[in-house]
Amino acid sequence: MKISARNQLKGRIVGVAKGQTTAHVRIDIGGGVVVTASITNEAVDDLGLQTGDEAYAIIKASDVMVAK
Amino acid sequence: MKISARNQLKGRIVGVAKGQTTAHVRIDIGGGVVVTASITNEAVDDLGLQTGDEAYAIIKASDVMVAK
Amino acid sequence: MKISARNQLKGRIVGVAKGQTTAHVRIDIGGGVVVTASITNEAVDDLGLQTGDEAYAIIKASDVMVAK
Amino acid sequence: MKISARNQLKGRIVGVAKGQTTAHVRIDIGGGVVVTASITNEAVDDLGLQTGDEAYAIIKASDVMVAK
Amino acid sequence: MKISARNQLKGRIVGVAKGQTTAHVRIDIGGGVVVTASITNEAVDDLGLQTGDEAYAIIKASDVMVAK
Amino acid sequence: MKISARNQLKGRIVGVAKGQTTAHVRIDIGGGVVVTASITNEAVDDLGLQTGDEAYAIIKASDVMVAK
Repeated sequence: MKISARNQLKGRIVGVAKGQTTAHVRIDIGGGVVVTASITNEAVDDLGLQTGDEAYAIIKASDVMVAK
Repeated sequence: MKISARNQLKGRIVGVAKGQTTAHVRIDIGGGVVVTASITNEAVDDLGLQTGDEAYAIIKASDVMVAK
Repeated sequence: MKISARNQLKGRIVGVAKGQTTAHVRIDIGGGVVVTASITNEAVDDLGLQTGDEAYAIIKASDVMVAK
Repeated sequence: MKISARNQLKGRIVGVAKGQTTAHVRIDIGGGVVVTASITNEAVDDLGLQTGDEAYAIIKASDVMVAK
Repeated sequence: MKISARNQLKGRIVGVAKGQTTAHVRIDIGGGVVVTASITNEAVDDLGLQTGDEAYAIIKASDVMVAK
Repeated sequence: MKISARNQLKGRIVGVAKGQTTAHVRIDIGGGVVVTASITNEAVDDLGLQTGDEAYAIIKASDVMVAK
């Protein structure tokens, strides 16, 4: 299955912090850059996300802004 | 001015394509990764975005998904 | 590959309309419900989306509102 | 009042789980499909959302991706 | 019908610009502030949005960032 | 640094409520209008957001809907 989201950044999970409903997953995509994703606890459990896993940060193009 | 968005990826613009209302800006963030942003034409003009410019791709954590 | 997005609605594409940069893809998810997705033309080409294809509408939980 | 969001999926609430600030509301839209919405606790209280209520899942077209 | 989105800013439409698929609607919410919405052409037609109309800019709390 | 987001509403913070991972920041933008932002706790700490601070609510045009 392929998804339309234009941005699929490969990396490795370096942190998973669960709150009561919302979790923060941090993915090291290389070059010293860590991307933070705010997703549901259910998604963390469903995918079995753990520190050390290879994973992708997926971002729809319309959710990316530009700063200069 | 500092913005709350957790993800601020530094790179260089490698493409600006304007449609009638919506533009696609492509930013090379290094390591062979190019991020695509879909923003308004007005924003492209307002910031004077051009190929070759240093720029940041800015993404709110709640707009990042994880795939594994 | 599995994605964290909580909402993955299976259906069939009933329309693809491309603009200059942005396309609208309509997916019939059954029960008389058609979901509209606004994505980049590049994504339409990359996935080869065409009327009649089986496809999923993918929506992050934080992008869903509730009305009553 | 009518809203511009292209996707307004009618269903019935089958679960409301509140965290400290963010709640997850699950809406059964028929055909065995349950949509999850991540909204503020304040919204849950303000609309008085409860299991069993008829409700709509509202989603902007630009927040829908396509997978194939 | 009431929607969960926390931000519902009342104003008056001061501009509607349609592209091939995506339109920009500008709403003056008072105090010299104009909010720009990027929505589908279909939504513009469906709601009959025109300059001079009273309208609301509707924004989900999870789509608002803070800068300081 | 300038950001592409079309909507940058100046105001004053009137409330900061932190949950376990997600915080709600309320910004009074004048004219009796308070905008709610749902952001990460980390962002609140990083920017040192406190009641009474001058701040901006930043919203991408593609995240604004219109109701009439």
